[in-house]
Amino acid sequence: MGIYRSTKNPIITPADINPSHAEFKIAGVFNCRVTMFNGEILLLMRVAETPLNNNPIKKLVPLLDVCTGKYIIKEFDATDSAIDLSDSRLVKTPFGQYLTSISHLRIARSKNGIDFIIDKKPAMFPDNEYERLGIEDPRITHINDRFYISYSSISDLTGVTVSLASTTDFITFKRHGIIFTPDNKDVAIFPEKINGKFYALNRPASAEYAARDIWISRSSDLVCWGNHLRLIGVRQGFWDNGRIGCGAVPFRTKQGWMEIYHGSSRENKYCIGAVLLDIDKPWEVIARSVMPLMEPEKDYEVNGFFGNVVFTCGVLYEEGIVNIYYGAADTSISYAKIWLKDLLYHLR
Amino acid sequence: MGIYRSTKNPIITPADINPSHAEFKIAGVFNCRVTMFNGEILLLMRVAETPLNNNPIKKLVPLLDVCTGKYIIKEFDATDSAIDLSDSRLVKTPFGQYLTSISHLRIARSKNGIDFIIDKKPAMFPDNEYERLGIEDPRITHINDRFYISYSSISDLTGVTVSLASTTDFITFKRHGIIFTPDNKDVAIFPEKINGKFYALNRPASAEYAARDIWISRSSDLVCWGNHLRLIGVRQGFWDNGRIGCGAVPFRTKQGWMEIYHGSSRENKYCIGAVLLDIDKPWEVIARSVMPLMEPEKDYEVNGFFGNVVFTCGVLYEEGIVNIYYGAADTSISYAKIWLKDLLYHLR
Repeated sequence: MGIYRSTKNPIITPADINPSHAEFKIAGVFNCRVTMFNGEILLLMRVAETPLNNNPIKKLVPLLDVCTGKYIIKEFDATDSAIDLSDSRLVKTPFGQYLTSISHLRIARSKNGIDFIIDKKPAMFPDNEYERLGIEDPRITHINDRFYISYSSISDLTGVTVSLASTTDFITFKRHGIIFTPDNKDVAIFPEKINGKFYALNRPASAEYAARDIWISRSSDLVCWGNHLRLIGVRQGFWDNGRIGCGAVPFRTKQGWMEIYHGSSRENKYCIGAVLLDIDKPWEVIARSVMPLMEPEKDYEVNGFFGNVVFTCGVLYEEGIVNIYYGAADTSISYAKIWLKDLLYHLR
Repeated sequence: MGIYRSTKNPIITPADINPSHAEFKIAGVFNCRVTMFNGEILLLMRVAETPLNNNPIKKLVPLLDVCTGKYIIKEFDATDSAIDLSDSRLVKTPFGQYLTSISHLRIARSKNGIDFIIDKKPAMFPDNEYERLGIEDPRITHINDRFYISYSSISDLTGVTVSLASTTDFITFKRHGIIFTPDNKDVAIFPEKINGKFYALNRPASAEYAARDIWISRSSDLVCWGNHLRLIGVRQGFWDNGRIGCGAVPFRTKQGWMEIYHGSSRENKYCIGAVLLDIDKPWEVIARSVMPLMEPEKDYEVNGFFGNVVFTCGVLYEEGIVNIYYGAADTSISYAKIWLKDLLYHLR
């Protein structure tokens, strides 16, 4: 296959991140987007925090109090049989679902792409009713000197929506509101217009029909989206038979738009694959990974906050090399690379 | 309250409709939109059909074969304990969910608003992979001599999406594709631009967080939608504590935009209520029904294909009178009216 993991993996771990609040600890630093900014490699990372808790009988859930703008902690009785804690990420109650961690976005910078300096403070925090349970999994698309950030907003009141923000300096961020209704996530906006229109990959979740497929949508202004089409679906009998979602922002190659996506099996093993889309008609599929491009193998990919996961939001393509920054086991960030020619061979 | 049901109710029943295929029977003619066209009152109705079946051990499911454009029938063993038939509208299997009926859209016309002549043939049929299980619950918005029809497209592959079509003559219909990703339904487009933008009410369904609330979205072109905001939610302790969705296209009053919506209790009793929205800022709520405006009372509302339902997609406001065409028990169409002044008193 010719995929090379860094020997320094994982390159960023929870120990590298300081919590945003004294009463929190870092549960994970993972799904990140990568972009070039001011001659450096910049990662916008999802940082998940959990409340400090020494009492195994209590399950603590952090959430945003929209009125005060502060985090509050909701307590559950971990021994209550009506509460389902079987998924380490969730607290499922008869009256609704919560997350065991709350995520914000944090920046890391590097000259060489492996050794990163991490900002002490969050870049973006949850701040409204749509973000009560956190903001997650950013993708950055660089268009006309503005960086557009699509990210997941999670709320027990409003579900999982996709919001858009933008920045020119990665210091101040302008919020543009919600661009996809619940439930949707994993939105990656193409880096240039195609025949005068913007396109975005996205992953709606049907409440009634259990489809977890990748769709493609069209826009004139990046805020209003329509002409929604189902692009690729989960595949019975394949590694991606459970759910799929876009990973990185697609990049242009001579052969077509290259999209690195994630797929999970029904057993929740998350792998990375690729799909090649027509350059002028990105809703047409040219090729798709029969086998995964990467699967969880290393200890740091198999064990963690939510194990057996490799998941990318961020790929940097430069001079024939596809640089993949990926979340491992919902805990840390790792790096791998593959030559484009090998990737195309994989998709032959 | 001052709400007057017609003594001729139900005004349209399954017996009035001829099936689209010899092997089908009419299960219901219900949720319809009403508009004035060529000096007549025109209803665009949802007609649900089920396959003829004399074998109680079989459960038959109709669906569209996209390749041939014809309906096919899927058979299930009604005695199989793995299949859940507890909801008369659904067949739930371990491998997915189907509908027991398939819906198309049909036109009825009237001079007096009570006695209708019904087209022999469907106006719109399901015709693509997004509509494999039928098309449902149309709303019509009249803008600049075009009638825009937003309707639910149902598919076991792609979930519940909202599609847009338009017509000038109610003979040929132009399809504009999918305007809201799954799951979403109950879309009503406001009849005029507000501060240069179109607005639409819609009802996304969160897969993960169980919210079934009414949202409002913005558009420049009726096809691409964004700036999604949650408008009103279900209310604990009220008649609409289960799920809510918009009903009719809102109409302009001096006091604000009047929206007649539906709400169900957790026990699936569907009632009709009203919400008044600010005329310039339709995302701001002025008033909302504390008690339902209408609830299922009459035999034709209590008993039917899915009983205990009054549900409207269509309201015609003329000279102080709100004419409500509503689906009763997912079986037939009925008519009721209320004076606007009484409706405003109800909302005081």
